[in-house]
Amino acid sequence: MKKHYDDDGLALHTDLYQINMIQTYWQDQIHNRKAVFELFFRKMPFGNGYAVFAGLEKALSYLQKFAFTSSDIEYLRSEMSYPEEFLSYLEKLKFTGTVKSMEEGELVFANEPLIRIEATLAEAQLVETALLNIVNYQTLIATKASRIKQVIGDEQALEFGSRRAQEMDAAIWGARAAFIGGFDATSNVRAGKMFGIPVAGTHAHAMVQAYKDEYIAFHKYAESHLDCVFLVDTYDTLKSGVPNAIRVAKELGDKINFKGIRLDSGDLAYLSKEARRMLDVAGFTKAKITASSDLDEYTIMNLKAQGARIDTWGIGTKLITAYEQPALGAVYKLVAIENESGELTNTIKISANPEKVTTPGLKRVYRIINTMNGKAEGEYIAMDDENPGAEERLKMFDPVHTYISKFITCFEARELQIPVIVNGEMVYELPELQDIQKKLERNLDELWSEYKRSLHPEKYPVDLSQKCWDTKMRCIEEVKAKVSEGFNDK
Amino acid sequence: MKKHYDDDGLALHTDLYQINMIQTYWQDQIHNRKAVFELFFRKMPFGNGYAVFAGLEKALSYLQKFAFTSSDIEYLRSEMSYPEEFLSYLEKLKFTGTVKSMEEGELVFANEPLIRIEATLAEAQLVETALLNIVNYQTLIATKASRIKQVIGDEQALEFGSRRAQEMDAAIWGARAAFIGGFDATSNVRAGKMFGIPVAGTHAHAMVQAYKDEYIAFHKYAESHLDCVFLVDTYDTLKSGVPNAIRVAKELGDKINFKGIRLDSGDLAYLSKEARRMLDVAGFTKAKITASSDLDEYTIMNLKAQGARIDTWGIGTKLITAYEQPALGAVYKLVAIENESGELTNTIKISANPEKVTTPGLKRVYRIINTMNGKAEGEYIAMDDENPGAEERLKMFDPVHTYISKFITCFEARELQIPVIVNGEMVYELPELQDIQKKLERNLDELWSEYKRSLHPEKYPVDLSQKCWDTKMRCIEEVKAKVSEGFNDK
Repeated sequence: MKKHYDDDGLALHTDLYQINMIQTYWQDQIHNRKAVFELFFRKMPFGNGYAVFAGLEKALSYLQKFAFTSSDIEYLRSEMSYPEEFLSYLEKLKFTGTVKSMEEGELVFANEPLIRIEATLAEAQLVETALLNIVNYQTLIATKASRIKQVIGDEQALEFGSRRAQEMDAAIWGARAAFIGGFDATSNVRAGKMFGIPVAGTHAHAMVQAYKDEYIAFHKYAESHLDCVFLVDTYDTLKSGVPNAIRVAKELGDKINFKGIRLDSGDLAYLSKEARRMLDVAGFTKAKITASSDLDEYTIMNLKAQGARIDTWGIGTKLITAYEQPALGAVYKLVAIENESGELTNTIKISANPEKVTTPGLKRVYRIINTMNGKAEGEYIAMDDENPGAEERLKMFDPVHTYISKFITCFEARELQIPVIVNGEMVYELPELQDIQKKLERNLDELWSEYKRSLHPEKYPVDLSQKCWDTKMRCIEEVKAKVSEGFNDK
Repeated sequence: MKKHYDDDGLALHTDLYQINMIQTYWQDQIHNRKAVFELFFRKMPFGNGYAVFAGLEKALSYLQKFAFTSSDIEYLRSEMSYPEEFLSYLEKLKFTGTVKSMEEGELVFANEPLIRIEATLAEAQLVETALLNIVNYQTLIATKASRIKQVIGDEQALEFGSRRAQEMDAAIWGARAAFIGGFDATSNVRAGKMFGIPVAGTHAHAMVQAYKDEYIAFHKYAESHLDCVFLVDTYDTLKSGVPNAIRVAKELGDKINFKGIRLDSGDLAYLSKEARRMLDVAGFTKAKITASSDLDEYTIMNLKAQGARIDTWGIGTKLITAYEQPALGAVYKLVAIENESGELTNTIKISANPEKVTTPGLKRVYRIINTMNGKAEGEYIAMDDENPGAEERLKMFDPVHTYISKFITCFEARELQIPVIVNGEMVYELPELQDIQKKLERNLDELWSEYKRSLHPEKYPVDLSQKCWDTKMRCIEEVKAKVSEGFNDK
């Protein structure tokens, strides 16, 4: 019979192998060596031309509070065979490292570091799982939301996905990520309370069923709410729903603010056009039509192409789960580690899959902005000690097909990662969520539209500096030499 | 500037329209009328022949704790325009209803009620979003896990998905659902602590990178851990990884328990066969090979078909996100409501999509077990006052193609939903997680293998009793008559 513990902390929200590795480092007394890890993803989600970084607020809260509780230690003691002194070490552990990160709402791309963690080997390793868990999901949803918003344009976008979200955290943090991505509101009241997101919603089919009469149901709703959007598809949209909505709106006149109707099933193109006609004939030309029903960027684009008359889009399942591709696949890789002499040395992971080979060393990420037109020319990843902004003529080249290259002269090199935690202390003031949303809008303005279309966007350059590329090649050669000599010949 | 609140309760984890509807009911003074809702899904996930119910433990905890906190009320007061007396009403609200539910680990099928909530209209309506959020995800993952386990068979199955889970709750509750579905262990230590699930894991690529030498890394790990599984693909699996693992295992001999190696990339079929050969030649015939790398039931079946020599399967992304179909789509529908005279009356929701028409009234779900062979003949949904177990000869017929029918004589009618909360009081003792897993195994034993295969399984019957079917048809006719008369002619 297992002993159960209350859930009282997130330090154990990690894979067991992290703790096992720390134990090895601790026994070998290398656990306090400085290590640098980078968090990045390798492939653009949904084939989109850009991604939207999100997850930093929660990641910072996690790092700030990182600590093993006494019940965590008790659990490890009773279930695992760790030495008692190792448990004492864990019990005192805090996150004392330094973190540089993209800000939320930043545009991000495959193969550029989003977060850089410099800490003791033990601390940096232990936080991997939770950081990935947070950033993978929130970045995925912010990206999906922005992608959907590109198709929706200036019309209203509402996040309706809580009931289909993958458990409760996803509902809440997904609502927040959707807002960052450009959505106007969420249906989740708790997300509204926690993050200050506008909350939207009127009534469900159940209300019409409860009154067993659509007209009465709408009337009762209108008696108790000034703003009214009536859901018209409980029995029959055009024969019953829309006529009853119009009847109630006419009867109550100025006593309510008849904002419109919501369609939740059926042929939304046909129904919205017919409903629009009926509303207009009745004089409600300003009443809006909201649609919801398994929508995503593909169905929305199709509905628009068919001339659907939809003013507000409610998106649930396909957004909150990123249905089309429900995982981002970000990884967290060691790029440098302190050696016996106290020097930081580069590390690499080799793979049979070329795209899985990591880029070693401490790096900085710059967005190269063409100062002639204010547009982004691409990302430029340089070693920590380089200063691309000081160069007169910057060579940018594709790190795979290296012959694809260009020279930029009039440019600004904007560094994208900023320090958020220094030696364990938070040095970053969390922005308001509304400002994060606006930051994304400004970022998108700098991106050529060819990178923003949903189908087959142009590939945005993510280039390495010559020094960065040379460093990587040198590391690969070193490992290859070691492997061909045979690691086991020593 | 928005005011932020600490997250201190789950009552607001609901869609705004729920609260808006309650306000209408409250102003109309029908909020305390008894209402009955059923939670069910309409389509088998992944085209699987069965699903596995999960989520009850968390759902019960949510219902037991259901209450608006003072900061919830403060938020609603400051952001919405609800009357003060309505807020006072909400502030006192608890869940006082009665709940019947399937047990976790039960086999469940499309279009049968999983949970039945009888409560005041207000209470039953408010809990919809959270119950769906919980059950949708956990049932989805338990089903996916069981589906994968069917292909894995008796070999070990490990859940490795935390870093790719859709936020933290999904990692934790997904690990639990995977265990229910038949997995042996999780990598998530917090899930181990919370639920008593065995936890598994050894080391990552980062450890090999940290030591910059695979042999030294394995040796260091072996010096600090008795049980050793070495990850062999950091540089080159067959030239470096496997030889170094064997070298360390030979050197340390009895000092360690060399359990085997893990492959995490590359051609798993080829690599596992070669690694097996190398291990066997070295005398480590009992060392196991673990594989992980974007696995799911399809890749596992393929690897087995190719004769891969894999003993333990680590499954991450594809399981924890149910990648193939990341939402179950369960819904929560009103099936009966008290009228002015205090009588419970049936309700229906009609739709242009026949599969979206609900089945009205209070019902019970039975599994019909053929007592000649102990196998399940199908589900039988009857009205609350029926007793199919007392019938000598039970007619079962398909509710869509009604001519498909059979008579059963030697049978047991096992009721599947049991009372878990009565008038707000928990009457159910939560089983141990290990017992839930065993319950599922027993349930699966009762299912013919034709329902269990992963590709094109036979469709398991979910039938309605004649009375249930008649009730549904009568309700449909009543609504159709009302619609054709015109709802707005009154």
